[in-house]
Amino acid sequence: MGIRHVALFRWADGVTSDQIAEVEGALERLPAVIPQLRGYTFGRDLGISANTYDFGVVADVADEDGFTAYRDHPDHQAAREIIVSLAVDRASLQFAIPDPD
Amino acid sequence: MGIRHVALFRWADGVTSDQIAEVEGALERLPAVIPQLRGYTFGRDLGISANTYDFGVVADVADEDGFTAYRDHPDHQAAREIIVSLAVDRASLQFAIPDPD
Repeated sequence: MGIRHVALFRWADGVTSDQIAEVEGALERLPAVIPQLRGYTFGRDLGISANTYDFGVVADVADEDGFTAYRDHPDHQAAREIIVSLAVDRASLQFAIPDPD
Repeated sequence: MGIRHVALFRWADGVTSDQIAEVEGALERLPAVIPQLRGYTFGRDLGISANTYDFGVVADVADEDGFTAYRDHPDHQAAREIIVSLAVDRASLQFAIPDPD
Protein backbone atom coordinates (compact mmCIF):
# COMPACT_ATOMS: atom_id res chain seq x y z
CA MET A 1 0.00 0.00 0.00
CA GLY A 2 1.37 3.40 -0.99
CA ILE A 3 0.44 6.90 0.08
CA ARG A 4 -0.93 9.62 -2.19
CA HIS A 5 -0.36 13.14 -0.84
CA VAL A 6 -2.54 15.89 -2.30
CA ALA A 7 -2.17 19.63 -1.76
CA LEU A 8 -4.29 22.33 -3.41
CA PHE A 9 -3.61 26.06 -3.21
CA ARG A 10 -5.35 29.33 -3.88
CA TRP A 11 -3.09 32.20 -4.83
CA ALA A 12 -3.40 35.66 -3.38
CA ASP A 13 -4.82 38.41 -5.57
CA GLY A 14 -2.12 39.79 -7.84
CA VAL A 15 0.04 36.66 -8.05
CA THR A 16 1.47 36.61 -11.57
CA SER A 17 2.04 33.84 -14.06
CA ASP A 18 5.79 34.42 -13.67
CA GLN A 19 5.51 33.82 -9.93
CA ILE A 20 3.61 30.59 -10.56
CA ALA A 21 6.32 29.60 -13.04
CA GLU A 22 8.83 30.05 -10.22
CA VAL A 23 6.79 27.59 -8.14
CA GLU A 24 6.70 25.16 -11.07
CA GLY A 25 10.45 25.46 -11.53
CA ALA A 26 11.03 24.68 -7.84
CA LEU A 27 8.71 21.67 -7.93
CA GLU A 28 9.84 20.13 -11.20
CA ARG A 29 13.32 19.44 -9.90
CA LEU A 30 12.09 17.50 -6.85
CA PRO A 31 11.68 14.01 -8.39
CA ALA A 32 15.36 14.05 -9.38
CA VAL A 33 16.51 14.76 -5.84
CA ILE A 34 13.89 12.92 -3.76
CA PRO A 35 14.05 9.24 -4.76
CA GLN A 36 11.17 8.43 -2.43
CA LEU A 37 8.82 10.06 -4.97
CA ARG A 38 7.20 7.24 -7.00
CA GLY A 39 5.01 9.70 -8.85
CA TYR A 40 4.84 13.47 -8.93
CA THR A 41 2.41 15.69 -10.78
CA PHE A 42 1.44 19.30 -10.33
CA GLY A 43 -0.12 22.11 -12.28
CA ARG A 44 -2.36 25.09 -12.68
CA ASP A 45 -6.11 24.70 -12.68
CA LEU A 46 -7.32 24.35 -16.27
CA GLY A 47 -10.38 26.58 -15.88
CA ILE A 48 -12.86 23.84 -16.75
CA SER A 49 -14.95 24.14 -13.58
CA ALA A 50 -16.19 26.91 -11.32
CA ASN A 51 -14.97 27.58 -7.77
CA THR A 52 -11.78 25.58 -8.10
CA TYR A 53 -8.48 26.00 -6.33
CA ASP A 54 -5.66 27.49 -8.45
CA PHE A 55 -2.84 24.95 -8.25
CA GLY A 56 -2.48 21.31 -7.27
CA VAL A 57 0.27 18.85 -6.32
CA VAL A 58 -0.11 15.06 -6.17
CA ALA A 59 2.88 13.15 -4.73
CA ASP A 60 2.98 9.34 -4.49
CA VAL A 61 5.30 7.63 -2.01
CA ALA A 62 5.63 4.11 -0.64
CA ASP A 63 4.96 4.77 3.02
CA GLU A 64 4.97 7.31 5.83
CA ASP A 65 8.78 7.40 5.89
CA GLY A 66 8.71 8.31 2.21
CA PHE A 67 6.20 11.05 2.86
CA THR A 68 8.33 12.46 5.66
CA ALA A 69 11.43 12.34 3.44
CA TYR A 70 9.58 14.35 0.78
CA ARG A 71 8.02 16.78 3.24
CA ASP A 72 11.28 17.53 5.04
CA HIS A 73 13.66 17.56 2.05
CA PRO A 74 15.38 20.97 1.88
CA ASP A 75 14.50 21.42 -1.79
CA HIS A 76 10.84 20.76 -0.99
CA GLN A 77 11.05 23.14 1.93
CA ALA A 78 12.46 25.79 -0.41
CA ALA A 79 9.58 25.27 -2.85
CA ARG A 80 7.15 25.34 0.04
CA GLU A 81 8.48 28.72 1.17
CA ILE A 82 7.76 30.20 -2.25
CA ILE A 83 4.27 28.68 -2.22
CA VAL A 84 3.50 29.92 1.30
CA SER A 85 4.52 33.44 0.24
CA LEU A 86 1.96 33.38 -2.61
CA ALA A 87 -0.94 31.28 -1.29
CA VAL A 88 -3.89 32.39 0.79
CA ASP A 89 -5.52 28.98 1.18
CA ARG A 90 -4.39 25.36 1.25
CA ALA A 91 -6.30 22.08 1.24
CA SER A 92 -4.43 18.81 1.69
CA LEU A 93 -4.61 15.20 2.79
CA GLN A 94 -2.89 11.84 2.45
CA PHE A 95 -4.75 8.67 1.51
CA ALA A 96 -3.75 5.09 0.80
CA ILE A 97 -3.33 3.87 -2.77
CA PRO A 98 -2.39 0.46 -4.17
CA ASP A 99 1.28 -0.22 -4.76
CA PRO A 100 2.31 0.10 -8.43
CA ASP A 101 2.23 -3.13 -10.43
CA MET B 1 -1.84 15.47 -22.34
CA GLY B 2 -4.37 14.10 -19.86
CA ILE B 3 -6.38 15.74 -17.11
CA ARG B 4 -6.11 14.97 -13.40
CA HIS B 5 -9.22 15.91 -11.44
CA VAL B 6 -8.82 16.27 -7.67
CA ALA B 7 -11.59 16.73 -5.10
CA LEU B 8 -11.11 16.90 -1.33
CA PHE B 9 -13.92 16.90 1.23
CA ARG B 10 -14.44 17.65 4.89
CA TRP B 11 -17.25 15.70 6.54
CA ALA B 12 -19.81 17.27 8.82
CA ASP B 13 -19.58 16.59 12.54
CA GLY B 14 -21.14 13.25 13.33
CA VAL B 15 -20.56 11.55 9.98
CA THR B 16 -19.89 7.89 10.77
CA SER B 17 -17.44 5.40 9.33
CA ASP B 18 -20.42 3.46 7.94
CA GLN B 19 -21.56 6.55 6.05
CA ILE B 20 -18.06 6.99 4.61
CA ALA B 21 -18.11 3.31 3.64
CA GLU B 22 -21.29 4.04 1.69
CA VAL B 23 -19.40 6.76 -0.21
CA GLU B 24 -16.54 4.35 -0.87
CA GLY B 25 -18.98 1.72 -2.13
CA ALA B 26 -20.54 4.21 -4.53
CA LEU B 27 -17.15 5.37 -5.85
CA GLU B 28 -15.47 2.00 -6.21
CA ARG B 29 -17.89 0.86 -8.87
CA LEU B 30 -17.30 3.89 -11.10
CA PRO B 31 -14.22 2.69 -13.04
CA ALA B 32 -16.18 -0.34 -14.26
CA VAL B 33 -18.98 1.81 -15.68
CA ILE B 34 -17.08 4.91 -16.83
CA PRO B 35 -14.49 3.78 -19.38
CA GLN B 36 -13.18 7.33 -19.69
CA LEU B 37 -11.47 6.86 -16.30
CA ARG B 38 -7.82 6.07 -16.95
CA GLY B 39 -7.03 6.08 -13.26
CA TYR B 40 -9.18 6.40 -10.17
CA THR B 41 -8.10 6.55 -6.54
CA PHE B 42 -9.87 7.75 -3.44
CA GLY B 43 -9.69 7.34 0.29
CA ARG B 44 -9.87 8.59 3.83
CA ASP B 45 -7.18 10.84 5.22
CA LEU B 46 -4.56 8.71 6.97
CA GLY B 47 -4.10 11.03 9.95
CA ILE B 48 -0.41 11.67 9.26
CA SER B 49 -0.67 15.47 9.11
CA ALA B 50 -2.57 18.18 10.93
CA ASN B 51 -5.37 20.29 9.44
CA THR B 52 -6.08 17.95 6.57
CA TYR B 53 -9.30 17.38 4.69
CA ASP B 54 -11.09 14.09 5.45
CA PHE B 55 -11.47 12.36 2.09
CA GLY B 56 -9.93 12.67 -1.35
CA VAL B 57 -10.64 11.59 -4.92
CA VAL B 58 -8.16 11.69 -7.83
CA ALA B 59 -9.60 10.88 -11.27
CA ASP B 60 -7.47 10.75 -14.43
CA VAL B 61 -9.04 11.18 -17.86
CA ALA B 62 -7.74 11.82 -21.36
CA ASP B 63 -9.35 15.17 -22.06
CA GLU B 64 -12.16 17.55 -21.20
CA ASP B 65 -14.74 15.29 -22.88
CA GLY B 66 -13.58 12.48 -20.60
CA PHE B 67 -13.90 14.72 -17.57
CA THR B 68 -17.43 15.72 -18.57
CA ALA B 69 -18.37 12.07 -19.15
CA TYR B 70 -17.19 11.24 -15.62
CA ARG B 71 -18.77 14.28 -14.00
CA ASP B 72 -22.15 13.77 -15.63
CA HIS B 73 -22.38 9.97 -15.45
CA PRO B 74 -25.50 9.01 -13.45
CA ASP B 75 -23.54 6.67 -11.17
CA HIS B 76 -21.12 9.49 -10.40
CA GLN B 77 -24.01 11.84 -9.81
CA ALA B 78 -25.49 9.29 -7.38
CA ALA B 79 -22.19 9.09 -5.49
CA ARG B 80 -21.97 12.86 -5.52
CA GLU B 81 -25.41 13.17 -3.93
CA ILE B 82 -24.30 11.00 -1.01
CA ILE B 83 -21.10 13.05 -0.65
CA VAL B 84 -22.94 16.37 -0.77
CA SER B 85 -25.28 15.16 1.98
CA LEU B 86 -22.28 14.46 4.27
CA ALA B 87 -19.70 17.13 3.37
CA VAL B 88 -19.39 20.66 4.72
CA ASP B 89 -16.42 21.72 2.60
CA ARG B 90 -15.00 20.84 -0.81
CA ALA B 91 -11.74 21.78 -2.54
CA SER B 92 -11.17 20.78 -6.16
CA LEU B 93 -9.35 21.51 -9.38
CA GLN B 94 -8.27 19.98 -12.68
CA PHE B 95 -4.71 20.15 -13.96
CA ALA B 96 -2.86 18.73 -16.95
CA ILE B 97 -0.78 15.57 -16.62
CA PRO B 98 1.30 13.68 -19.15
CA ASP B 99 -0.40 10.93 -21.11
CA PRO B 100 0.38 7.44 -19.80
CA ASP B 101 3.31 5.66 -21.47
